Amino acid sequence: MISKEQERTEEKETGRLEAFSDGVFAVAITLLIFQIPIPHGGSLLKQLGGQWPFYTAYVVSFLTILIMWVNHHALFRLIHRTDHLFLILNGLLLMLITFVNYPTAVLAEYIEGSDGRIAAMLYSGTFIVIAVLYNLLWRYASGSHRLLSKRADPLLIATITRQYRFGPLFYVVTFLLAIINAPTSLAVNTLLALYWAFAGRAKSPKTEAGAR
Amino acid sequence: MISKEQERTEEKETGRLEAFSDGVFAVAITLLIFQIPIPHGGSLLKQLGGQWPFYTAYVVSFLTILIMWVNHHALFRLIHRTDHLFLILNGLLLMLITFVNYPTAVLAEYIEGSDGRIAAMLYSGTFIVIAVLYNLLWRYASGSHRLLSKRADPLLIATITRQYRFGPLFYVVTFLLAIINAPTSLAVNTLLALYWAFAGRAKSPKTEAGAR
Amino acid sequence: MISKEQERTEEKETGRLEAFSDGVFAVAITLLIFQIPIPHGGSLLKQLGGQWPFYTAYVVSFLTILIMWVNHHALFRLIHRTDHLFLILNGLLLMLITFVNYPTAVLAEYIEGSDGRIAAMLYSGTFIVIAVLYNLLWRYASGSHRLLSKRADPLLIATITRQYRFGPLFYVVTFLLAIINAPTSLAVNTLLALYWAFAGRAKSPKTEAGAR
Amino acid sequence: MISKEQERTEEKETGRLEAFSDGVFAVAITLLIFQIPIPHGGSLLKQLGGQWPFYTAYVVSFLTILIMWVNHHALFRLIHRTDHLFLILNGLLLMLITFVNYPTAVLAEYIEGSDGRIAAMLYSGTFIVIAVLYNLLWRYASGSHRLLSKRADPLLIATITRQYRFGPLFYVVTFLLAIINAPTSLAVNTLLALYWAFAGRAKSPKTEAGAR
Repeated sequence: MISKEQERTEEKETGRLEAFSDGVFAVAITLLIFQIPIPHGGSLLKQLGGQWPFYTAYVVSFLTILIMWVNHHALFRLIHRTDHLFLILNGLLLMLITFVNYPTAVLAEYIEGSDGRIAAMLYSGTFIVIAVLYNLLWRYASGSHRLLSKRADPLLIATITRQYRFGPLFYVVTFLLAIINAPTSLAVNTLLALYWAFAGRAKSPKTEAGAR
Repeated sequence: MISKEQERTEEKETGRLEAFSDGVFAVAITLLIFQIPIPHGGSLLKQLGGQWPFYTAYVVSFLTILIMWVNHHALFRLIHRTDHLFLILNGLLLMLITFVNYPTAVLAEYIEGSDGRIAAMLYSGTFIVIAVLYNLLWRYASGSHRLLSKRADPLLIATITRQYRFGPLFYVVTFLLAIINAPTSLAVNTLLALYWAFAGRAKSPKTEAGAR
Repeated sequence: MISKEQERTEEKETGRLEAFSDGVFAVAITLLIFQIPIPHGGSLLKQLGGQWPFYTAYVVSFLTILIMWVNHHALFRLIHRTDHLFLILNGLLLMLITFVNYPTAVLAEYIEGSDGRIAAMLYSGTFIVIAVLYNLLWRYASGSHRLLSKRADPLLIATITRQYRFGPLFYVVTFLLAIINAPTSLAVNTLLALYWAFAGRAKSPKTEAGAR
Repeated sequence: MISKEQERTEEKETGRLEAFSDGVFAVAITLLIFQIPIPHGGSLLKQLGGQWPFYTAYVVSFLTILIMWVNHHALFRLIHRTDHLFLILNGLLLMLITFVNYPTAVLAEYIEGSDGRIAAMLYSGTFIVIAVLYNLLWRYASGSHRLLSKRADPLLIATITRQYRFGPLFYVVTFLLAIINAPTSLAVNTLLALYWAFAGRAKSPKTEAGAR
């Protein structure tokens, strides 16, 4: 009886953490639009055309944060408890998610100049850190079943652990490409975002169903 | 029994997607105020008067996003499940909703100059894309009853499908008007927003009641 | 039975509208901080001292929006249904709430110059419109008990109607003061905000209890 | 019976206040990223290197607000009622939380110049005020058990009261350090944030469990 009540209290706590995280995701993803500067004077068509790096970076960052939000939710379907360290790890993840606004603007600003490669490295580097933080968060939560629901499917847990392990590698590739050529790195980041959005999780409804 | 539990889980998932979407809508609609620049120095009355395009664009964009939020809610009263592609389509819709901030500021900035028509085309063009995305989202959700509640009224579904089909046409009209004259296009967009806000859904309480 | 289910559906709808409104309130009140410009170079102490109008306007606007949020909640404790026009009236109210950011910055920018009185009139004028919109919203919701809970205390309804009627008058006074002297008008707005925050609703717990 | 219903109503009210507060926390913490200016032109690496005060201030402020959010939640696990004065005290706390954006940017802007100490005093001074407001809020809520849950553990209440009493002292120390040297003060603020994030509440899961 006490166990039931405590379980409910714990799920409520987790729900609040998720709601706060969703709030930060929602604000961070919406603020991206402010990274596109409003043109002033001059030929508008020419100005809009010259802003292609801002549009591209906006779309890629939006899709990437969107996919990260989807992943965050997928984790919280399995996580039913929180503790102090988990709150902090999740907070660090949110810090990096909101930070994405900064490299997005820097990349758009510098991609066409001689420092484009540094800007592209900063951009992909941010995504590497985020992917590593997702691994840390998940390892901490799933290690010896620390914060997971008792009903979490072991097969699904193993699948997530395996998928997450490879997450940072993709961004390491775009980081290495950035050392050679900035637009190519951004192009591959675009393809990655589109792939994950439209193809990468085609089987997720099934695995998601297995989460309960 | 299992079906009941799963149904509840699915509705909870849909509720979270809706809460996240509401968060993005709330931030996007509030950020519009930042598109009105704060005047510095000079005669204040004259400066305020010169900002009429910013006030107009602010009101029209606010009302338009507000109506889109009302529509989004109306859809989610019928939608009781989600899947990965639906999450992404909804995300694209949210991307365009937050994007509205940009053409709003561009229109206000350029409407009085020689590039006003291009700015007005950008503005109405954004609304066309949003209206098309609403159709895609709804078609995907309602097609072969994919994500709808079992209790969704078929008559209401047909009505929404029919209404949405005409949605983009209104903005095609203001887009075509923009090619001729920017202020006229903005004026018609204003009338459309006012009409939908104060008259267009006069019968909605009834049809809404039919949703359950 | 049907009546019970429908009642629950309606309360859920109202809950969502309130959550969306809370989101807009939360963003609008937080964005106020961006109206204080970050000083660059020069003597910092001198610059901070010169920014007193920004600090004052920030505090007054924050407290005023906070009190408006408290009032908004008080209304929604009595309102248990929504309809399309109510959604729009509430949306107009939210539009003006987010708009407060603009006159706040204009007032701080101009209060010390010769156009300070115009800026102060814009500031108090915005609050007049908001107070009138609260009356419209409440009159529409409470008129012939349109959207109220059946259990709403008639005495409390009458009290709110009476209090709201006088709301705009206070801001008419600060508006008239603005015609004469801007700092005086701001000072009275400050006193009003402090009074409502710390004294004005001393009896509210009791009347609130009567709401159920 | 009436008591049960009223209790539920009161908890719902408290839940709404908490959701609104979470919204303000989420927006305030996300907006911090806008305090890092986007570099324009020049050598990017050099510009990024020159922005170290902005990165440091960003991380410290983010962690500090994150910890304050954790504390806010811990309080609301014990608080089950609200009244008007509590709403206002909580609102003042939220005002200072959103205000953190301003001294963060001022500190980053001035830390390397001759006015760095004034900027660092403003920064630590803001945290002193926040820590004092937490004490006020808690004292008001817990005084003669005014707004607490009946089941709140007296031992836990006493522990919080004792811990909070010392909260402002830490920031008084960094404030005094700021009078002497700005970077040292920021460094100690960084250590404090890291300590509270990763060590300070190691025992909290236990005490938290005692809250119910």
